[in-house]
Amino acid sequence: MRVAIIGCGCSGMASIKCCIDEGLEPVCFEKTSDVGGLWNYREDIASTELGCVFKSTVINTSKEVMSFSDFPCPKEFPNYMHNTLVNKYLKMYAERFDLVKYVKFNTSITAVQKTEDFASSGQWNVTIKDEKTGKVREEIFDAVMVCTGHHAKPHLPRFPGMDNFKGKIIHTHYYRKPFGYENKRIVVIGIGNSGVDASVELGRFASQVLFLSTRRGSWVLTRLTHYGVPRDLKRNRFISSFPLWLRNRLMENSCDYVFDHKAFGLKPAHRALSAHPTVNDELPIRITSGSVIIKPNVKRFTETGIEFEDGSFEDKIDVVVLATGYDIAFPFLYESFAKVEGNKISLYKHIFYPDMEKPTLAVIGLLQPWGAANPVVEIQCRWVTRVFNGKVKLPDRETMWRAIKRKQASVNKRYVQTQRHTIQEDYIGYMDEVAVEIGVKPNFFRMFWRDPKFWYTNVMGVHLPYQYRLEGPGTWKGAREAIETVWERVHAPTQTRKVPSEDPEVAMKYVVLALFVSVLAFIFYM
Amino acid sequence: MRVAIIGCGCSGMASIKCCIDEGLEPVCFEKTSDVGGLWNYREDIASTELGCVFKSTVINTSKEVMSFSDFPCPKEFPNYMHNTLVNKYLKMYAERFDLVKYVKFNTSITAVQKTEDFASSGQWNVTIKDEKTGKVREEIFDAVMVCTGHHAKPHLPRFPGMDNFKGKIIHTHYYRKPFGYENKRIVVIGIGNSGVDASVELGRFASQVLFLSTRRGSWVLTRLTHYGVPRDLKRNRFISSFPLWLRNRLMENSCDYVFDHKAFGLKPAHRALSAHPTVNDELPIRITSGSVIIKPNVKRFTETGIEFEDGSFEDKIDVVVLATGYDIAFPFLYESFAKVEGNKISLYKHIFYPDMEKPTLAVIGLLQPWGAANPVVEIQCRWVTRVFNGKVKLPDRETMWRAIKRKQASVNKRYVQTQRHTIQEDYIGYMDEVAVEIGVKPNFFRMFWRDPKFWYTNVMGVHLPYQYRLEGPGTWKGAREAIETVWERVHAPTQTRKVPSEDPEVAMKYVVLALFVSVLAFIFYM
Repeated sequence: MRVAIIGCGCSGMASIKCCIDEGLEPVCFEKTSDVGGLWNYREDIASTELGCVFKSTVINTSKEVMSFSDFPCPKEFPNYMHNTLVNKYLKMYAERFDLVKYVKFNTSITAVQKTEDFASSGQWNVTIKDEKTGKVREEIFDAVMVCTGHHAKPHLPRFPGMDNFKGKIIHTHYYRKPFGYENKRIVVIGIGNSGVDASVELGRFASQVLFLSTRRGSWVLTRLTHYGVPRDLKRNRFISSFPLWLRNRLMENSCDYVFDHKAFGLKPAHRALSAHPTVNDELPIRITSGSVIIKPNVKRFTETGIEFEDGSFEDKIDVVVLATGYDIAFPFLYESFAKVEGNKISLYKHIFYPDMEKPTLAVIGLLQPWGAANPVVEIQCRWVTRVFNGKVKLPDRETMWRAIKRKQASVNKRYVQTQRHTIQEDYIGYMDEVAVEIGVKPNFFRMFWRDPKFWYTNVMGVHLPYQYRLEGPGTWKGAREAIETVWERVHAPTQTRKVPSEDPEVAMKYVVLALFVSVLAFIFYM
Repeated sequence: MRVAIIGCGCSGMASIKCCIDEGLEPVCFEKTSDVGGLWNYREDIASTELGCVFKSTVINTSKEVMSFSDFPCPKEFPNYMHNTLVNKYLKMYAERFDLVKYVKFNTSITAVQKTEDFASSGQWNVTIKDEKTGKVREEIFDAVMVCTGHHAKPHLPRFPGMDNFKGKIIHTHYYRKPFGYENKRIVVIGIGNSGVDASVELGRFASQVLFLSTRRGSWVLTRLTHYGVPRDLKRNRFISSFPLWLRNRLMENSCDYVFDHKAFGLKPAHRALSAHPTVNDELPIRITSGSVIIKPNVKRFTETGIEFEDGSFEDKIDVVVLATGYDIAFPFLYESFAKVEGNKISLYKHIFYPDMEKPTLAVIGLLQPWGAANPVVEIQCRWVTRVFNGKVKLPDRETMWRAIKRKQASVNKRYVQTQRHTIQEDYIGYMDEVAVEIGVKPNFFRMFWRDPKFWYTNVMGVHLPYQYRLEGPGTWKGAREAIETVWERVHAPTQTRKVPSEDPEVAMKYVVLALFVSVLAFIFYM
């Protein structure tokens, strides 16, 4: 069974790997000359359809949480990896499982159409274009995995007066580094991750006034929490089982503890878990040092400046950066579901279109988890490849539609109604949901009785992707050790200088203090 | 009485202002064409004797704490000001009190010598050089205030093999901005403020490996503390009265709470208050993202790399940045105290040399307070000008020497023995010490009985420079209001976007929770 995989970013790689694991024959088509997708930093912004990180982008999920479930990041890698290291990790993954030999580089897909006998064969007619020669050919595949991500088509909002604005307008999609923006007066529109990343970076060298405009405000998380521990290492199954309102409250308290969102003008009307998280560690100090100034939504552009909705006006603006996200788009797909409207798309568990006669087309990575991408796309691929080879069956059409409607209703209820929040998912919840389909969710009830210590590590400790390799198909015998030794790998990269051992004088002071307190307690007790 | 003031940075400006207040006639000589000293950012690094901030420098003391005592920073200024704003504030100060007319620009002092009748007249022979024409002339002054600071002569340590190193070596004194360092492999030596500022900035664009080498490690403070409140607004008279070991412990806990200094390889052998503070908000995330790697002290240079004391070796180093501080130097002074050895200098309260027949020469700002510079140099100037005009007397020679020896002994006991820690002072302690000399330290005992609320604000609230304008000579009638309205000015700059009011649903949840807890409590009580 031959599977066409479109794109070789993290989703594409996981697809190839899972195809091999499940005895399918993968053929991956990659438009560029290298694997890595948007983690493959390119100075060149001419290839406009390709998403790409900033020069300075650091991933906002920590290394243990973002690892593929059978391939932990190297011990010496920093916890939050620079994009060059994420790219290196992906390449190591490709090398470890020998994935590159399945990739056809400089090759793009221009069309994917059902074959005439699709209802019985489930086969696809794939139009392949050689990017170098421009030559186009067609090929039949038994299944297709769409791994093009959702960072290809910049969303460009229209504001009144925009056309007459004389300064430069760019979307973050085309932004790479702050050189050349020195002493410019800049307005950034949008408070998602790209918007805030661009703001804190440009605010350093812009003319000390970078205005960050936001419609709704945002809860902002820092990567690090108390004692410099990566925040996502605090997420576990126990806390995830709390009711939503309590998790919201805990999250908001935690955000406010770093900086008071009300005092800093960022507090939104929505709850913390009702929007995709904005993660940034430098925003608080940039706001306090006045290099980023929070503004409400843009009302209109003039030729030289911008008026905001509170009536304030900033003149002599040189550059406007649109950090307004992306539209979901599949230009090569002629399926009806692929005509996305209002950025809404109806896929069963974000993967399968229920109205298809055969489930031989899967969309990978078309969701925004409140967590890391790699483990999510990987578990999707594990499921998809088992659906392809028939080991796992999908429910019938009606059941799938009901599930989709239910999910959409719950997303609508919980999330802010914007085009950004149509594909949100809770991380642990979604992973478990898919894991159950494959049968790789650990049996925690059994674990609790047979191995309580390990149960505690899994439920109260970090939620790690390796948990999905403990039992069921595709187990990895290193999984248990990887779970048990996670803190060693977390602490390893910063052990680069030997620190002096504890000062004995300090300990003495404690003894004296303890003695003093004891005496006091004794006196009061008498 | 004519007073020569050398230099027109913050010390020079405060000197002019205090001379006017005390009926003296100031003449200020400024080498450059502008006021502001090192806060006056200059791209040009040719004028090597002048200290200067980086392009991105943000002051590490907050605006209320660093204000001159009778001139609070404008309400709308951010709490931690970018160097351009600090410079603007200094210029506003100069304008408000009309100081610039006393400044002779492009004029440097090449020699300051006692006149022949110094023992009776106390007069000084000042050699003045016109920087434009090169013409030199002499002039007699009744007194001299040295306001040249201690950031003029870079301290350049020698390491084995340094001369054969083929990469570039620069001192932070000559560093301005990160452009041009892209993709370079860099080692920064020294973990003071310049070293860490340069590291976090260069680490962003260097080839993902910037090594920060430190002999001793350091406690690192962030500018912001819980809820985004500027850290120095938490310092007050109450906490400052705690014993040193307890303040050390509190400070270290607070530092560790941000990031574990042991796990991050930064923990020093010394206590937190035994060294000048290193203040940086971005170091934790830079270390966690691997863009700054902490290394021990440098052992030796090779032609292409650096070997560290733990035996590790980093090759292919393009640039070494020496963030090794400054030597104290007064090239224009022929007084014996000015021959500084081991960076040690013996001045009574860091200002007067006891062996002088007349106290008509004062050194301003030659100390490193654990706090803001402006209020410290200002209170020094207030004292000095009152000593000059005879309203305040200095103690006799022996008393001064005894005080100096006592202070040196206590500094030696408390601080790490390096050339950096010869002029350390506790902020509140030193301010009060000088304030007592002038009679401007508020009488807190009386205040406690007559005005307990205001006493509480002063003792338990922020320690503000305006406290020294409440009574005694030079009172300012706005002082009390400035103290009482401090939080309005702290919050003003970030009120740039109206936040939605509290969600009633949230409040309701609390009511439900409270009710639930009450019921539970009731049941258990029964």
